[in-house]
Amino acid sequence: MASVDVPVALLGYGTVGQAVNRLLNDSADDIERATGHRLRVVKALVRDVEKHRQFAPDAGVLTSDIRDVLDDPEITVVAEVMGGLEPAGGYVLELLRAGKNVVTANKQLVATSGAKLFEAASGAGVQLRFEASVCAAIPVIKVLRESLVVTNVHRVLGIVNGTTNFVLTEMEAGSTYAEALAEAQARGFAEADPTADVSGADAAAKMAILATVAFHSRFTLADVDVLGIDSIDPLDVAAARELDMVIRLVGSASLSDGHVDVRVRPALVDRHHPLAKVEGAFNAVMLQGDAIREITLEGPGAGGVETASAVIADMVSVIGTMGTGFLQNDAVWRELPRLPAGEHRSPFYFRLSVDDRPGVLARVTKELGDRDVSVARLLQHPNGDGASLHVVTHEARQGSLDDALVALGALDEVRSRPLAFPVISDRGVTELGWA
Amino acid sequence: MASVDVPVALLGYGTVGQAVNRLLNDSADDIERATGHRLRVVKALVRDVEKHRQFAPDAGVLTSDIRDVLDDPEITVVAEVMGGLEPAGGYVLELLRAGKNVVTANKQLVATSGAKLFEAASGAGVQLRFEASVCAAIPVIKVLRESLVVTNVHRVLGIVNGTTNFVLTEMEAGSTYAEALAEAQARGFAEADPTADVSGADAAAKMAILATVAFHSRFTLADVDVLGIDSIDPLDVAAARELDMVIRLVGSASLSDGHVDVRVRPALVDRHHPLAKVEGAFNAVMLQGDAIREITLEGPGAGGVETASAVIADMVSVIGTMGTGFLQNDAVWRELPRLPAGEHRSPFYFRLSVDDRPGVLARVTKELGDRDVSVARLLQHPNGDGASLHVVTHEARQGSLDDALVALGALDEVRSRPLAFPVISDRGVTELGWA
Repeated sequence: MASVDVPVALLGYGTVGQAVNRLLNDSADDIERATGHRLRVVKALVRDVEKHRQFAPDAGVLTSDIRDVLDDPEITVVAEVMGGLEPAGGYVLELLRAGKNVVTANKQLVATSGAKLFEAASGAGVQLRFEASVCAAIPVIKVLRESLVVTNVHRVLGIVNGTTNFVLTEMEAGSTYAEALAEAQARGFAEADPTADVSGADAAAKMAILATVAFHSRFTLADVDVLGIDSIDPLDVAAARELDMVIRLVGSASLSDGHVDVRVRPALVDRHHPLAKVEGAFNAVMLQGDAIREITLEGPGAGGVETASAVIADMVSVIGTMGTGFLQNDAVWRELPRLPAGEHRSPFYFRLSVDDRPGVLARVTKELGDRDVSVARLLQHPNGDGASLHVVTHEARQGSLDDALVALGALDEVRSRPLAFPVISDRGVTELGWA
Repeated sequence: MASVDVPVALLGYGTVGQAVNRLLNDSADDIERATGHRLRVVKALVRDVEKHRQFAPDAGVLTSDIRDVLDDPEITVVAEVMGGLEPAGGYVLELLRAGKNVVTANKQLVATSGAKLFEAASGAGVQLRFEASVCAAIPVIKVLRESLVVTNVHRVLGIVNGTTNFVLTEMEAGSTYAEALAEAQARGFAEADPTADVSGADAAAKMAILATVAFHSRFTLADVDVLGIDSIDPLDVAAARELDMVIRLVGSASLSDGHVDVRVRPALVDRHHPLAKVEGAFNAVMLQGDAIREITLEGPGAGGVETASAVIADMVSVIGTMGTGFLQNDAVWRELPRLPAGEHRSPFYFRLSVDDRPGVLARVTKELGDRDVSVARLLQHPNGDGASLHVVTHEARQGSLDDALVALGALDEVRSRPLAFPVISDRGVTELGWA
């Protein structure tokens, strides 16, 4: 690039946008030393230019007209930090087609419209980067794409939603689900409507992106098998503790025999596993590959400044690789089939609420044995006038287990429909069984 | 770059060199998809071209003459994987001066000769990269330099030596130091002469490199205050457990009020701290900065294939940024003073072997109080015909504590010269006190 000065534009000027502008100002010297360039926000698209902003931009920067960004030939890099599918998606597409590099923090957009956007970027000879869309400042996309290029990553395990991890660690400390969620809302970790977090939908969008980058095949939200944390009972939390495990909402993307499985589920995780050690609102992503065994990245997975830091790192990467004639765009070059849900194998945990009378255990274990599901550990506790059975199985087919659970739910002695969670008992895909 | 084919050379063809060649072969398609280029080893410098190698290179690749690499105008990237200061250092300098980009896995070389090498690289308009020199496949250098460019990292805490971490976790499980070290040697984690590991020298070289990159000021081995793990007694391990802590060999580099402190010490780490959770031969590095709070990277910090993976990632980065007119070379642009050793502040732990008679505790606490060192926790256990006192202090000046320990060592009732370890009790520089 001829010029040391790089004019950039922002779409959106909320918490993240203001943090980007402030960090670019405060760290202009650091960025110049690291890249040879100075980045300066010259336009920021907002709905209302008059609204008061804590970190006000220079006069003339705010605009409500996308054409001021699209038609300015000086602007070569744009950061989309407005969020939502539209109008953000349409703007990004137009900007890419107009030959502008785009950096986005928008996981919904990348998870749903990645194919179309990357195609537009490559067609116009520009880059689309999205580090901030997954786990904010944790540089998992860069590490996957640049540091682990020869490691054949075959599995990604992650705690990629801080709200649910906070709720689960509070429940470990004795809170009910409702109390823990209220505390998360009071601390600003959870929205007033926490559905996207607790349902697993937020985590699913991130896992779709991670699976796409790791396995070079397109996965969208629809490909992710999701179960949220609202099904977890304090009885499960107590049983996990007795089993020397903790409950975490774990996203898993695995490639095995050419088939990919992407899911988000509450899981019982052995206390010695790195993911068991992630506490509070933090995120962690474990990357397992041939040449590296596993690398785990842990940090804050949300926050305005943290997200802004990742947005700027992406801008710096775009600028640092311009002029090389190679674009780091779509990671996808093949189409891998999904593993049929029933064929997924894992050790599982489930809880049964049963009548406390002789013969129950025999009937339960027979239904399991009939379907090749073998019991590894079993706890029984009195619960009101009945009992709670907590069962950990050896590795089993998901389909066989599901059949067994249906049969168990139909028994006279069983009082509720049982729900199974995977068990993550050790590192490494072979020992782990959750392949 | 005009050509898609990139001929590269290796200095050294041992475990790492062979793994680099094999991975470049096996992953040639992956690399081309990620970078637009194919990397091919055309020369590998060895002492004895006739020696049998498990992964033999193509005919004509092995050479014992450095001129075959230096004088080949086709070779633009060279990986130094031979180790040791000389002749590796002289070769790297010559290669840089000859206009060849160099990637090195040699921590001793970077820690001792970084200034000279980076100057040569920048002078010749080429790059010198060194990801593999710190913690093998854990991409801490790339993350520090590229992802955290606007985060003002002010503290780096790391478990950067797998051998000592293995020994310490074995001691936690009940082994003596000698038993744990023998087990590490049996498993191939420790050399026959384990001095470099257990003395902390290996960790010190890595911390000097990390401090240099994080704080942009040159630190060499001589700037690192080092204490190894051979001073740890099973009594300390037991006391740590009672205090709900573990002992780890922790490297610390911190920037506070414009002064830098770099040290490697056994430390008592609270069980909830991310570094306490690193088990066995794994490494972890925690980066604390303004915009990110903290990011922790964990993984295997050694191993031939792991190191080779980082070497190749560096080669890919060199190729991916060639032609941009900007070189990511020396991180240093300022000179920061070292914090005088006595001014370092931290909570500390120490153990005293004392006579078990009335008045001892009063004399001990008086010597501490006289020097403004206040006691936070204290354990006393019978030990033979005497007693062990285990003391955890509140945050104190290192100089004051050292004075107090000298005074304590001179007391009639105290049987041995006490040794203090820092205590890492929580996250974040303010709570932690180990600034």
